[in-house]
Amino acid sequence: MVDTSPTSHSATPPITTDSVPPTPQVNVEALAEQLLGRWKEDRLAARKTAAKPELHQINGLSMQEHRERVMAQLRVLVEEGAIQRAFPTSLGGSDNHGGNIASFEELVTADPSLQIKSGVQWGLFGAAILHLGTAPHHERWLPQVINLEMPGAFAMTETGHGSDVANIATTATYDESTEEFVIDTPFRGAWKDYIGNAAIQGIACVLFAQLITKGVNHGVHAFFVPIRDTKGNFLPGVGGDDDGLKGGLNGIDNGRLHFTDVRIPRTNLLNRYGDVAPDGTYSSPIDSPGRRFFTMIGTLVQGRVSLDGAAAAAMKLGLHIALTYGSQRRQFTVTEGGEERVILDYQRHQRRLIPKLAETFAVTFAHERLLRKFDEVFSGADDSDANREELETLAAVLKSLSTWAALDTLQECREACGGAGFLAENRLTGLRADLDIYVTFEGDNNVLLQLVAKRLLSDYSSKFRNADFGVMARYVAERAGDTVLHGTGLRRLAQNVSDFGSTARAVGQVRDVDYQRALLGTRVGSMVATVAERLKEASKLPPEEGARLFNENQNELIEAARAYGEFVQWETFTRAVNQTMDAGNRQILTWLRDLFGLSLIEKHVAWYLINGRLSGQRAESVTQYIDRLVERIRPYALDLIETFGYGPEHVRAPIALGAEKQRQDEARAYYAAQRAAGIAPVHEKTLKKRQSR
Amino acid sequence: MVDTSPTSHSATPPITTDSVPPTPQVNVEALAEQLLGRWKEDRLAARKTAAKPELHQINGLSMQEHRERVMAQLRVLVEEGAIQRAFPTSLGGSDNHGGNIASFEELVTADPSLQIKSGVQWGLFGAAILHLGTAPHHERWLPQVINLEMPGAFAMTETGHGSDVANIATTATYDESTEEFVIDTPFRGAWKDYIGNAAIQGIACVLFAQLITKGVNHGVHAFFVPIRDTKGNFLPGVGGDDDGLKGGLNGIDNGRLHFTDVRIPRTNLLNRYGDVAPDGTYSSPIDSPGRRFFTMIGTLVQGRVSLDGAAAAAMKLGLHIALTYGSQRRQFTVTEGGEERVILDYQRHQRRLIPKLAETFAVTFAHERLLRKFDEVFSGADDSDANREELETLAAVLKSLSTWAALDTLQECREACGGAGFLAENRLTGLRADLDIYVTFEGDNNVLLQLVAKRLLSDYSSKFRNADFGVMARYVAERAGDTVLHGTGLRRLAQNVSDFGSTARAVGQVRDVDYQRALLGTRVGSMVATVAERLKEASKLPPEEGARLFNENQNELIEAARAYGEFVQWETFTRAVNQTMDAGNRQILTWLRDLFGLSLIEKHVAWYLINGRLSGQRAESVTQYIDRLVERIRPYALDLIETFGYGPEHVRAPIALGAEKQRQDEARAYYAAQRAAGIAPVHEKTLKKRQSR
Repeated sequence: MVDTSPTSHSATPPITTDSVPPTPQVNVEALAEQLLGRWKEDRLAARKTAAKPELHQINGLSMQEHRERVMAQLRVLVEEGAIQRAFPTSLGGSDNHGGNIASFEELVTADPSLQIKSGVQWGLFGAAILHLGTAPHHERWLPQVINLEMPGAFAMTETGHGSDVANIATTATYDESTEEFVIDTPFRGAWKDYIGNAAIQGIACVLFAQLITKGVNHGVHAFFVPIRDTKGNFLPGVGGDDDGLKGGLNGIDNGRLHFTDVRIPRTNLLNRYGDVAPDGTYSSPIDSPGRRFFTMIGTLVQGRVSLDGAAAAAMKLGLHIALTYGSQRRQFTVTEGGEERVILDYQRHQRRLIPKLAETFAVTFAHERLLRKFDEVFSGADDSDANREELETLAAVLKSLSTWAALDTLQECREACGGAGFLAENRLTGLRADLDIYVTFEGDNNVLLQLVAKRLLSDYSSKFRNADFGVMARYVAERAGDTVLHGTGLRRLAQNVSDFGSTARAVGQVRDVDYQRALLGTRVGSMVATVAERLKEASKLPPEEGARLFNENQNELIEAARAYGEFVQWETFTRAVNQTMDAGNRQILTWLRDLFGLSLIEKHVAWYLINGRLSGQRAESVTQYIDRLVERIRPYALDLIETFGYGPEHVRAPIALGAEKQRQDEARAYYAAQRAAGIAPVHEKTLKKRQSR
Repeated sequence: MVDTSPTSHSATPPITTDSVPPTPQVNVEALAEQLLGRWKEDRLAARKTAAKPELHQINGLSMQEHRERVMAQLRVLVEEGAIQRAFPTSLGGSDNHGGNIASFEELVTADPSLQIKSGVQWGLFGAAILHLGTAPHHERWLPQVINLEMPGAFAMTETGHGSDVANIATTATYDESTEEFVIDTPFRGAWKDYIGNAAIQGIACVLFAQLITKGVNHGVHAFFVPIRDTKGNFLPGVGGDDDGLKGGLNGIDNGRLHFTDVRIPRTNLLNRYGDVAPDGTYSSPIDSPGRRFFTMIGTLVQGRVSLDGAAAAAMKLGLHIALTYGSQRRQFTVTEGGEERVILDYQRHQRRLIPKLAETFAVTFAHERLLRKFDEVFSGADDSDANREELETLAAVLKSLSTWAALDTLQECREACGGAGFLAENRLTGLRADLDIYVTFEGDNNVLLQLVAKRLLSDYSSKFRNADFGVMARYVAERAGDTVLHGTGLRRLAQNVSDFGSTARAVGQVRDVDYQRALLGTRVGSMVATVAERLKEASKLPPEEGARLFNENQNELIEAARAYGEFVQWETFTRAVNQTMDAGNRQILTWLRDLFGLSLIEKHVAWYLINGRLSGQRAESVTQYIDRLVERIRPYALDLIETFGYGPEHVRAPIALGAEKQRQDEARAYYAAQRAAGIAPVHEKTLKKRQSR
């Protein structure tokens, strides 16, 4: 597919079909295997679990019924031994971090509330004890966490502090006289809020509070705090509230907690990264309070990783439903007296859904990469600071992009199914409602993208202060391409980007992979460098002024992070294409990757035009080529959704299970029989035409 | 504000402040009055009704409870005499068509289910009897429809035919021997579906079916058909089903209906536009079956009109909530030791919400124009065919744009409120869920836009076959500007567009109103002309080929209709600015209109660049000027939402009623007191800094 006529400026779309096999076929089995990724077995086992009817969401339950049902479902998971993977072998687990996330995220097909509630119990509450606590904590509490004898809450967010965890207001003040911490909620805004398991079912929590000893605030630390007695009543000093009905995820009892002079033993401090001696002396293996805070918070990255994977799964379900329906539903006659056309054969319908299909592959491959990075760090294979930071950056940017993509995709699917899409039984509205909060919890997407942008900026300022855009672009390309895995192809890639980035030569054609890479990569590099230039003075200014300057560039900064994330997705997709052995799959994945890449370029085409990276003519050819690709991929739509591997027990939407096809076939048979028997009434229109002859 | 330096190409944003009053203020009362529009009294009365607690949506009701509650609410409306406006004076009404819609759409603040259920009973079921029936029908059924003794359904849509009403499959075959119509549902796909009042509460319906007499199908007609007895059981031959839980609007009992040999008297045909004599002879005042069909369907345009208004109201509610919260909620310290900043002072937050505020004004003014057009036609002041067609086009395009805008706005508001935005009590998720279906019912937005585009095309081909783009652009400008109301300013306007459209001279600057008009107007004209050129040959091709050619341009065609609608919104906004007397309001509305116009240009900037209508430099200045406008409008945000006129009894979201401000004030007072008393613990970070000195 590499274009050999770099100076061609033909106005017609640059498609040549000679190098394409005549009619490539999807090898469903092979592509399904590829999508399952490294933790295939865990994923398949989780899908088998998720197929069980008792784990399925039932529409129309009351909030209370739904909460009880999901709690009972968690017990099913315990009975199945489905949740131990991430815990140490000493506690019956298997230290399988990647497989653990892979299996949890598959639960979204059963009920997103089940996925998130499991995440609260084992991924947040349990994982905090595991990662922030030490051996005595593990031995004492984890067995009960794992077997669900102790449902628990992860009490971090406060009503007044969501994304800004460092400034939460709850305090844990050490009292040397009794060797206890005293937990206090100073005002209403410091109530813990939106906390899963807090409204009803949690009997303990991992509480995040400012650790104060000897008059010094050592920053946010985590404490194990019992909150309810065996009868479900709050313990003395603990109070709370029910968050009540939410826009979705109503199988989880989110609530509020507040504490007044609640005393816990000194040893309830989860003391891996900071400890207080009986005499009140504070100590920590990490000297810098800032780095200590980020290290502690960093251990909780798995929430973001699993949301990214759940978003991918939800996109697959949505498209499975909408593309199936679109290929069966008929509407509007194409020619007089002719049959009605299936709606997926209309250009607009294709344009609405097929780019989302391409994006779903991009999100899936990018998620696999994130999962491997996560496993690498948490298994200890490479838990260097640099790799941890890389994991956090990747999780932040991919979670942001994928959770927004899931909402957009589910909404487009809903609209593409019309009234049928609005019925709860067809699941699209429910999935969207449940996933809505994914874009703002475990880190608000806008805040996460800003963090990513700051990392890109700080890399830039430390390494490239005096470099030109091309160097920055090369660096971005290396980063997005992941040097570890990309290996020797890197030099050529970087060269390419650099060549392109340093001049505005429109080499190659839009379908060429290196050209796409150059377009996407230089945009990131250039955006980061531009903002960096503007902010160069910020650190020298008085804080207020610096903040003002930063704020004036906030929007562009966040857009730079988004561009970086899109480029990471594209690079990872390209790597997946390169690893595809089956020729048909490779061809079709190439088209999907091109569609994904060109859709990004089309979305940002104004930037390319303004910055002289694309001519107007070439920009138009991007759109024309997208139109062609969409049409070309359309015949493979049903095969492609089959590779997602979801059966009727996962999909469950009647319109995607053949009901529509049956109705359409019946209707067509009826009219055909009428015509054959000559009993169809003649239409007045036809009559008038005959008369006018 | 008219720019006097047409050749200026300054790179700095073209803002001059000299002509701006020093600090304009919002005159809330005057602007509120302007927004209320011509049917101010009806609107205020409806808001008073909508303020009643018994009409308010209660979160967490079961579907059954919600349905019963909304039915009871309809009775409240009857008791209040709130629903007669549109009916004839002879039946106790007031022939007030505009005021009727204005008052119904305000019900959306109480509960969208109430708005839509009212719409089903009186706006669809009742209005169909009124507009498609004749005097005997009115006398016989309307009193019971108005007083709700006869809850009814509007049975048009079928499972297999939503947007394509002409091809519904239900038949009404005349039997001369008994002088009856025989209603039949030939197959499952022809069941009436998604029909409000059909699942439980309707006892009759207006049924749409193919009228067949003497072996001839005269096309779709409406029939009055009783469906349930006094006990609520289906009458013989009638069957049905409950659509069950939906993604929203669960206060309405949507369901399915099917008919097997159901006989109704000949006189149950609503015979205004087509009748059958006792001997089976068909007659109609409209000879062409096509025009007859569109005339009948056209009488039902009020559904689209009211959705447009409801979308405007929902946008106002959403922004009232999110902008109030954004101006009270604090997060992230700006400077060390300093106070946290309110989130609406962050650029990104402003960029997310303030353009939506501008769009809300655009949607509101455009809706008022639509409402006046509707009243003009339905009051008989001007019910010419041309004006009816203009009304239909306007309703189709404005409903599409505003209902999508409402979903986008409510979602952005939800995300901007973070976790609080996800709580049902804060209403954003519920409003969005209820309004979701607005984008596909009463005409799927994509289908409606295609209809609009076809009208633009047909105007083009009949009037401008040999004209150039400039002439088309002028025509579009006249159309969008509404010749009837725009009067004498038209010539200058058209001249302007023409000057601009015929050349690519970048005269004026982006903030200049004529320049905005020229940019927006020429884009529409050019898009329509381009597609028209491509489709020129379609009518000469064999039908299959013509359909293929059309389909290849479907996406662009729909985008042309969208561009037209945006231009109409902008023109109407501009007219509203020109009619504003208060100097401060005029200034602030001008900024909002500029923000709206420039946001449209920014959204489509690629088109302007590719087509040589904007230089790269000028395109960048559009974005820079938007940044400035957003910042400039921000201080007026709270005043502007006050002009929407919704009180706490309409808003009802706790986060918008002062709860957040109270919490933030309490938190700040707590820390201030600690600092004043010198009892704040010193932070380890500060300690380390001191030590390192």
